[in-house]
Amino acid sequence: MDSCVIPLRHGGLSLVQTTDFFYPLVEDPYMMGRIACANVLSDLYAMGITDCDNMLMLLSISQKMNEEEREKIMPLMVKGFRDAAEEGGTSVTGGHTVINPWIIIGGVATVVCQPNEFIMPDNAVPGDVLVLTKPLGTQVAVNAHQWLDNPERWNKIKLVVSKEDVELAYQEAMFNMAMLNRTAAGLMHTFNAHAATDITGFGILGHAQNLAKQQKSEVSFVIHNLPIIAKMAAVSKASGRFGLLQGTSAETSGGLLICLPREQAARFCAEIKSPKYGEGHQAWIIGIVEKGNQTARIIDKPRIIEVMPRGASLHHDNSNTSPETTS
Amino acid sequence: MDSCVIPLRHGGLSLVQTTDFFYPLVEDPYMMGRIACANVLSDLYAMGITDCDNMLMLLSISQKMNEEEREKIMPLMVKGFRDAAEEGGTSVTGGHTVINPWIIIGGVATVVCQPNEFIMPDNAVPGDVLVLTKPLGTQVAVNAHQWLDNPERWNKIKLVVSKEDVELAYQEAMFNMAMLNRTAAGLMHTFNAHAATDITGFGILGHAQNLAKQQKSEVSFVIHNLPIIAKMAAVSKASGRFGLLQGTSAETSGGLLICLPREQAARFCAEIKSPKYGEGHQAWIIGIVEKGNQTARIIDKPRIIEVMPRGASLHHDNSNTSPETTS
Repeated sequence: MDSCVIPLRHGGLSLVQTTDFFYPLVEDPYMMGRIACANVLSDLYAMGITDCDNMLMLLSISQKMNEEEREKIMPLMVKGFRDAAEEGGTSVTGGHTVINPWIIIGGVATVVCQPNEFIMPDNAVPGDVLVLTKPLGTQVAVNAHQWLDNPERWNKIKLVVSKEDVELAYQEAMFNMAMLNRTAAGLMHTFNAHAATDITGFGILGHAQNLAKQQKSEVSFVIHNLPIIAKMAAVSKASGRFGLLQGTSAETSGGLLICLPREQAARFCAEIKSPKYGEGHQAWIIGIVEKGNQTARIIDKPRIIEVMPRGASLHHDNSNTSPETTS
Repeated sequence: MDSCVIPLRHGGLSLVQTTDFFYPLVEDPYMMGRIACANVLSDLYAMGITDCDNMLMLLSISQKMNEEEREKIMPLMVKGFRDAAEEGGTSVTGGHTVINPWIIIGGVATVVCQPNEFIMPDNAVPGDVLVLTKPLGTQVAVNAHQWLDNPERWNKIKLVVSKEDVELAYQEAMFNMAMLNRTAAGLMHTFNAHAATDITGFGILGHAQNLAKQQKSEVSFVIHNLPIIAKMAAVSKASGRFGLLQGTSAETSGGLLICLPREQAARFCAEIKSPKYGEGHQAWIIGIVEKGNQTARIIDKPRIIEVMPRGASLHHDNSNTSPETTS
């Protein structure tokens, strides 16, 4: 499970908590803080928990940074983390900081819940539909962006992608990684979700397999569609790394993979786009739950859904409505 | 405060939690695991909390270790951590591991409490007495032990200490760092403790000052006695580092510093030595609480209490009862 659930001595309550920490993967320290926080909270959201009682922040300052770098970078990371926590309706009270060769940022999210506040991730049944709430390809986008400064690596992918594509994909990846899965967690209750997990280091297939293993019914998950940040499927192929189309490319702070009753899935995907939840939420039906032996697979030639970066569509909209092009 | 206390939505309950992580400081990985766990739990114990609902373990494996080293060392550290958690009546459910240049071990301790289960550390009053539950000098002992292999450093202290003294002090330090402050936490309730903290990185004086600052009454803490692992006061002086006699030498997983009503302090110190709590518990009256302005100090010439290592007394007992010396 993404979080641990501990029954408490007090009136049917459970302690649910999770921890995660890692190394910066984007250059913007503020966004990195937001991503780290979204990533920790995501384990609670995967259980349909929308409220977190407390967060602790785990931080290591790099010994290789000079005083000036420390004073510039660390407060921004901390602010990003705190802002995301606030957006999640919680706050950061406590934590610990050390000095280390590398920067580390992470946290602990804890909540005390009544039984109806969380959804145990083991109730998928044949006939359910799999929904994913963020596009894949964050790791590919982050690495492709680093390769802009690495001619050897860049040469391998420059035939399939432009520098502008990579910039837009990187922005889109950052946006997605920093976005909380909180709205999706709330809608899991509205639409009667049967199980969910969040997509991180093991890729979509790895996490789908983990989730399938936990199910009480004899089920298997079959993935037909892969929503991927535009051009990143091609980059993954051209680079010969990642395995994005095989579902093994790591994601950071990815979306929720949710098993929903068939009749609810389309409504879930429509509802999450409603402006009342703020901008940028998306969801796709990516597969089905069938009778099986607790495994997950991607079909031979999955449909790739190229998810356009917001930057691109914004640019597109702007030019459509600019005076020059209006007749 | 050593732990954060978050009021919950549920019937007067509070969430109390704390986190700590650091780098190995002793060579024995099993003991290191125990020390890390004792160190995390100590923040709860300082609030008089004797039961922990859940622990998470935070771990980084050093990238410099080869496969064999990893497989030998990490399971021992994890076992030490788990064993100490079990001794504390709790268990480790969850955590996170990364690869890093250095080994890191730490954890998160969380409990959901009723108000009578914890003692807010702000009720010291003039006339109270300060009690300390472990001897000082852990850092000095650990470093002196490392200096056995460093002739330059060793030369500075060899006039005041023998190799055997250092070995015994190191064993004593390990024993103390790995010992839980749980018994002391329980006795804080029995003897009506007014406030407490645990002694770690800021040394006895730093933590005494922090505790003094938090008091609601106008008080100051005055420390008269320093119980120190035998010979480590001399080592601290000879080395010209540490500041052990000034109260600024860091401790790891140190004892609790407890403000007790005067008439209870001696009883506390007697009770904690009772065999019913297992071996090795000690406590000393080290100072007083007087009217003042939220500060703490050590008197000019504090009394040094040389705390004999158990190894030494064991050795001593053995020779006393051995056939050769019995007349």
